[in-house]
Amino acid sequence: MRVRGVDRRTIRVGEGGRAIEILDQTRLPFEVVVRELVTAADAAEAIASMRVRGAPLIGVTAAYGVCLALRADPSDASLAAACKELLATRPTAVNLAAALAQMRAAVEPLPQGARADAAWREAARMADADVAANRAIGEHGLPLLRAAAARRGADEPLQVLTHCNAGALATVDLGTALAPVYLAHDRGLAVHVWVSETRPRNQGSSLTAFELAEHGVPHTVVADNAAGFLLQRGRVDVCLVGTDRTTATGDVCNKIGTYLKALAARESGVPFYVAAPSSSIDWSLRDGAAIPIEERDPREITCVAGRAPDGRIVLVRVQPDASPAANPGFDVTPARLVTALVTERGVCPASAEGLLALFPERRAAAAP
Amino acid sequence: MRVRGVDRRTIRVGEGGRAIEILDQTRLPFEVVVRELVTAADAAEAIASMRVRGAPLIGVTAAYGVCLALRADPSDASLAAACKELLATRPTAVNLAAALAQMRAAVEPLPQGARADAAWREAARMADADVAANRAIGEHGLPLLRAAAARRGADEPLQVLTHCNAGALATVDLGTALAPVYLAHDRGLAVHVWVSETRPRNQGSSLTAFELAEHGVPHTVVADNAAGFLLQRGRVDVCLVGTDRTTATGDVCNKIGTYLKALAARESGVPFYVAAPSSSIDWSLRDGAAIPIEERDPREITCVAGRAPDGRIVLVRVQPDASPAANPGFDVTPARLVTALVTERGVCPASAEGLLALFPERRAAAAP
Repeated sequence: MRVRGVDRRTIRVGEGGRAIEILDQTRLPFEVVVRELVTAADAAEAIASMRVRGAPLIGVTAAYGVCLALRADPSDASLAAACKELLATRPTAVNLAAALAQMRAAVEPLPQGARADAAWREAARMADADVAANRAIGEHGLPLLRAAAARRGADEPLQVLTHCNAGALATVDLGTALAPVYLAHDRGLAVHVWVSETRPRNQGSSLTAFELAEHGVPHTVVADNAAGFLLQRGRVDVCLVGTDRTTATGDVCNKIGTYLKALAARESGVPFYVAAPSSSIDWSLRDGAAIPIEERDPREITCVAGRAPDGRIVLVRVQPDASPAANPGFDVTPARLVTALVTERGVCPASAEGLLALFPERRAAAAP
Repeated sequence: MRVRGVDRRTIRVGEGGRAIEILDQTRLPFEVVVRELVTAADAAEAIASMRVRGAPLIGVTAAYGVCLALRADPSDASLAAACKELLATRPTAVNLAAALAQMRAAVEPLPQGARADAAWREAARMADADVAANRAIGEHGLPLLRAAAARRGADEPLQVLTHCNAGALATVDLGTALAPVYLAHDRGLAVHVWVSETRPRNQGSSLTAFELAEHGVPHTVVADNAAGFLLQRGRVDVCLVGTDRTTATGDVCNKIGTYLKALAARESGVPFYVAAPSSSIDWSLRDGAAIPIEERDPREITCVAGRAPDGRIVLVRVQPDASPAANPGFDVTPARLVTALVTERGVCPASAEGLLALFPERRAAAAP
């Protein structure tokens, strides 16, 4: 991603390999702060306090956390303790458990003296694989954007609506839903993105807006409430969002509010695409309605963080002290509302058959 | 409405008739401040700066503004100047123009010496008529809530979802959409209200939550994004919202985001009722899609007002300076998504025939 005019990844090994460098996302969009992680505990803290967020980026950060632990102490006890500490940071993140299992499998059979080096290689592979998957999603998604642009006509930019942040900041680089947008922009297809602010944490207005602005992609922030209006009035050509967890049947569990946009897109006859890297697919799940939804801290509703006129970042309360709040973090968009899934292997219908055609190796496991 | 344990109207004539007293809604929910309006300019300022808002309350405030002008100077010039100043405050509010026309018709034919008294009487009638209409909407809506409660079963409170503020604070008293809720609560029907915060101005989390809390009605604030999730999971029995403008065919123009809730309600088979006083019906309009939608100040998106930890009310910026924002204020919910309209004359289908059955005097005008 581009930050202050320089291309960089959201996470990387610092010079000399002493530390892992991350962009501290809790300081965005107002300050660009690079933070160094030197211990596994640093990595755990960065995940828990959401200095890094987004399923793919959480996984890679945890992997580097294991590297930092093994460099300090390559024993079985050190490995187990690091994995336990890192896993506890975000209990519902699927990628986190998968990344830790992958790291463990790569280093556990090795003699202690070889573990740290193997861990660094494995974490680097994981980071590179994320970028490669996102680039492939970009390439597969781009023709969908070109087709939508052709329907709109040549004179006006393509109008894309997205939700939350499924961009570079949620991954090691490029993003999932935003990957086709970045490729389109870089290759000269005029594109404008409607960024829904994504209450309660405002990942749209703070993170998606930030990375689009840094990259120079034209965009406009709107309230989440405005999505239906924009679709009704023909001001959106295509919806493109990410997914936190995709069922084997194509249901999409993503940031709260995604479902409302999918309903409005169908009502207006606008395609609703979901960028779904295979790492987001939970092959054991067949019904999105069965996914337990995380209830998050109600203070995310009652309070909003922003920059005060004096430049300080403050948290202000926006509702009466006497009023309680509830904060479900995700909703489930049923497959029937999803026009297609965009995976790193290609585009497919949001259905069990669609997914299995792209991932035939899962066919045996899916047999009833 | 109840404020700090005392029943009062949102607007009233102060003791001795020297001034009009309003609740300053820009200070809610954190401070209860009663503000005195002594001149027509005070009334205009109160409307323009949204110390009073909500179509019915704006109309009555403007009417009292005319009274204040005529008390100071009952001449034709004074009347004309006051009407012009008051009308310019919120150019798109239908009730404002209607209220001013009604005041003008009541006083213009009279000798100057009789105008002020007639104006005070007419404004008081208008205020009382608003309360009476809202009480009738409450009585007509209550059976709908009782029926929904019966479907849920006796053990759990009825779950109502509302949007924005169509409560006492939008009117002289009681509110439109909240009138049936207050009656239900006061008469012993257990009811719980999901309050969607209503970005960008947060009228839900600041005003609706405030008045429900003051009245003791159980409620919970949620992000606008959460409405679909609550409906999907069976946690809403009935949706009940207000309307800024209703077409003769039953389309509903209301606060941005209303349409998304209506879509989700239909998808989950939950009734979607709109409290529509006849003053909101624009008999000249037959197609909601033709209603021009007010684009409001983008700073309502980029900034949020709240109470800082030190107690001060501050405006914080929540997105990058480089990112523009757009702020459409309303959307249109087509009649087919509205289960029924609740008017002061009764409940009717959201259709031209439904409305004409309740308002037969409009039939001649509606004939093609």
